[in-house]
Amino acid sequence: MKSGNTERMLRWVCLIGFGWVVGVTVGGTQQATSTIESYRATAEKIIQETMKGNDSFKKLEGLCDDIGHRLSGSAQLEQAVVWAVETMKRDGQENVRAEPVMVPHWVRGQESLAMVKPRAQPLVLLGLGGSIGTPAEGINAEVLVVRDEAELESLGDRVKGKIVLFNNPMPEYTVEKGTQYGTSVRFRSKGASLVAEKGGLACLVRSVTASSLRSPHTGALRYLEDKPKVPAAAITLEDAEMISRFQARGVPVGVTLKMEAKTLEPAKSANVVGELRGSQWPDEVVVISGHLDSWDIGQGAHDDGGGCVQAMEAINVLRRLNLRPKRTIRVVLWTNEENGLAGAKQYAIDHEAELVKHVAAIESDGGSFRPKEYSVECRDEARQAVALEQMKSILDLVSSIGTMTVEADGSGADVGQMKPAGVVLMGHNVEASKYFDYHHSPADTIDKVDPKELSQNVAVMATVAFVLADMPKRVGEK
Amino acid sequence: MKSGNTERMLRWVCLIGFGWVVGVTVGGTQQATSTIESYRATAEKIIQETMKGNDSFKKLEGLCDDIGHRLSGSAQLEQAVVWAVETMKRDGQENVRAEPVMVPHWVRGQESLAMVKPRAQPLVLLGLGGSIGTPAEGINAEVLVVRDEAELESLGDRVKGKIVLFNNPMPEYTVEKGTQYGTSVRFRSKGASLVAEKGGLACLVRSVTASSLRSPHTGALRYLEDKPKVPAAAITLEDAEMISRFQARGVPVGVTLKMEAKTLEPAKSANVVGELRGSQWPDEVVVISGHLDSWDIGQGAHDDGGGCVQAMEAINVLRRLNLRPKRTIRVVLWTNEENGLAGAKQYAIDHEAELVKHVAAIESDGGSFRPKEYSVECRDEARQAVALEQMKSILDLVSSIGTMTVEADGSGADVGQMKPAGVVLMGHNVEASKYFDYHHSPADTIDKVDPKELSQNVAVMATVAFVLADMPKRVGEK
Repeated sequence: MKSGNTERMLRWVCLIGFGWVVGVTVGGTQQATSTIESYRATAEKIIQETMKGNDSFKKLEGLCDDIGHRLSGSAQLEQAVVWAVETMKRDGQENVRAEPVMVPHWVRGQESLAMVKPRAQPLVLLGLGGSIGTPAEGINAEVLVVRDEAELESLGDRVKGKIVLFNNPMPEYTVEKGTQYGTSVRFRSKGASLVAEKGGLACLVRSVTASSLRSPHTGALRYLEDKPKVPAAAITLEDAEMISRFQARGVPVGVTLKMEAKTLEPAKSANVVGELRGSQWPDEVVVISGHLDSWDIGQGAHDDGGGCVQAMEAINVLRRLNLRPKRTIRVVLWTNEENGLAGAKQYAIDHEAELVKHVAAIESDGGSFRPKEYSVECRDEARQAVALEQMKSILDLVSSIGTMTVEADGSGADVGQMKPAGVVLMGHNVEASKYFDYHHSPADTIDKVDPKELSQNVAVMATVAFVLADMPKRVGEK
Repeated sequence: MKSGNTERMLRWVCLIGFGWVVGVTVGGTQQATSTIESYRATAEKIIQETMKGNDSFKKLEGLCDDIGHRLSGSAQLEQAVVWAVETMKRDGQENVRAEPVMVPHWVRGQESLAMVKPRAQPLVLLGLGGSIGTPAEGINAEVLVVRDEAELESLGDRVKGKIVLFNNPMPEYTVEKGTQYGTSVRFRSKGASLVAEKGGLACLVRSVTASSLRSPHTGALRYLEDKPKVPAAAITLEDAEMISRFQARGVPVGVTLKMEAKTLEPAKSANVVGELRGSQWPDEVVVISGHLDSWDIGQGAHDDGGGCVQAMEAINVLRRLNLRPKRTIRVVLWTNEENGLAGAKQYAIDHEAELVKHVAAIESDGGSFRPKEYSVECRDEARQAVALEQMKSILDLVSSIGTMTVEADGSGADVGQMKPAGVVLMGHNVEASKYFDYHHSPADTIDKVDPKELSQNVAVMATVAFVLADMPKRVGEK
């Protein structure tokens, strides 16, 4: 394992062999480390069983090919709920159930965007989730391109009666900086309200991706409270650049935007739960999870069908190996992650009394590429620090799959709902260089998922979950 | 320059400085080589003038942004003809004219493809150029997936009443093998006739690309004579793979294909011609060319707006430098390359008497990435061999832009029409690793063209054209 970076701890480091560094901390962690090390043979067994063949890709076909995309409120999402319950029952999981949740029901309807000035050409769009629609005749207006909030602000009254396009490129992925989704997504999230506040008629945003083959990427917007609402849609990099080139040449661009988008009454949905019950402390729970819902395009394969089948197959592998941990491993397949988090919020309410017994909650919602890292967070900083150290040891158990790192960082939007309860939360993260090429777009399809990499994720998640559920002390405790 | 590989010639090689190799051949070529070398200062002047700033990207905006895509028979193609004439006149070119050509007039109309079994989902398609349409109610049938002609043949009578999908992946680009477009495109070209012959109702082909974000790529089909015709369309890699996965699992896939495609009466169009007249032998001509038409999607930026503006700007740079060669350099912007080659065929007819005075004809129709290679072909093999050697020397003049190679290989579809007349034909070729990601798709837009690389192509083409038009002997003559 690598030595830790927690300065509070007194360490001595010894170098064994070729760069093999072991950090052992005085005061209890030494024991914890050797305890975790004792799971090495078990980890290897899990890895071998998983990699020699498992049902994860077949499950992903069941979800993505047989059902397809799964937006909250859609018939497909409820088919996915039924499918997940049936599949986990067939696998022999325990306490399999659908836990009811009411979810927002936004529907896209027909939508179109056409450039009408300086010449006629259809443009490619995807309305943003949660957007209101336009009048039936559409919104006909000139487009003003801005790079960011400051440029919008500088336009003052010129925004009135116009459609504003935020053309702010998402930087390319780099190993150092990662994907920079967080900063680039703000125009999609809040742009509509900013435009509406200044008297604009609609908001267009450059799709949040660094790579495009005329590819639109949708996602949720958030109307700010007490602000007027205007319709909003994502357009492709190509079309955003064309409009910007016209503006740079002083050529006015006019468009007609038509969107039937609307929000219906909330719909019935469910989180799907299944368990591998613990042998000794069954009421203590390690959650492993992904979200069942997706946007209404593509297949929701990387986002987040993969996360669901990783969790489903992880306990399946453990069950096949007759590896029953002392605590319960609970698979939770969240509903409505994409546009509301209603599933995660409902779970935190329904299971409130039980959350004190939630030892850890893991979410995989960053795709199913090569496993790379666990991010760890906990409201209790001391617990988080100990958990970080322990996770380094645990991830070293899967080093035959590849080196994985541990970071103190956000975990996942769903498990994040359990943060106030003090649960140790973890993000199961993967190599992300291509993730946003597909994310929220028609190209998020199962062919982008490598069965071997998917299996590697299953093996890692199964091992991590087993050790967390079986080790004598709760993760985060010395 | 690099030493040649033409074994007929007796050579001695001397090494000057750091790896600078000069091959001098006994019997006339020595003189030719030193003659070409005498253009080095001129070449450097052309390169510097071009790279310090030129109008090529602005011209490409005029063509791609202001006009858009330009299918034969469309109003936009005729706008492009007018634009090219006006632009070359404004640049001060000589003998600028539109030479009338009747072109095929295929129109796509509305089209849709929907999977109806095992579940309902719209699929992404682009009808193939030249395809017939379907009945208004569409063609409803089961899909059979085959990899190639042999597998189609093996299905025998099972094809009757079915829609056949050719799902044959185009290999990824490699430096060694290049793009392998030639072998992969055959299903698009001939698939429909093969399917029709066996009683199939329609033909779907996997788009000819190795990279996809749910991206359809169109292109021309060729119905074989005396065979029945069925409609044909390209689908995305993603949808082709999904249908194939269903078939592999024994799940029948049904689709409804609707296409309004039809071929109207031939339309009026034109090749656009403009010249830098020669000072000494003005009736001897070096053609530099690209094609004005494109498919009815995207902007036809790499294919082949870039080729057009390379040629237009090449003589513009020479004119600005007051570099008037002894022979005439003639820009020809072909019409109807994509689906008929009517422009090139008409040129060969209209200029038949003059072709004997065509010293060389160059076509750039492989995109506007970094210039990489000239391919050279001539019906007269001895002339071709000499031209190959001379082109090595000429391309060495532009080595400050980058190393370029020379190959005996096909030139271009348009200039190829002059092959029977014995003209020395050349393809101006570029680094092609990304070309087929965009080719014939909605993503072939101007943002994919790097202004610097476009300028490098202008500089190379201007230099090559000038030397060919100015050197004492005709290219290919010792």
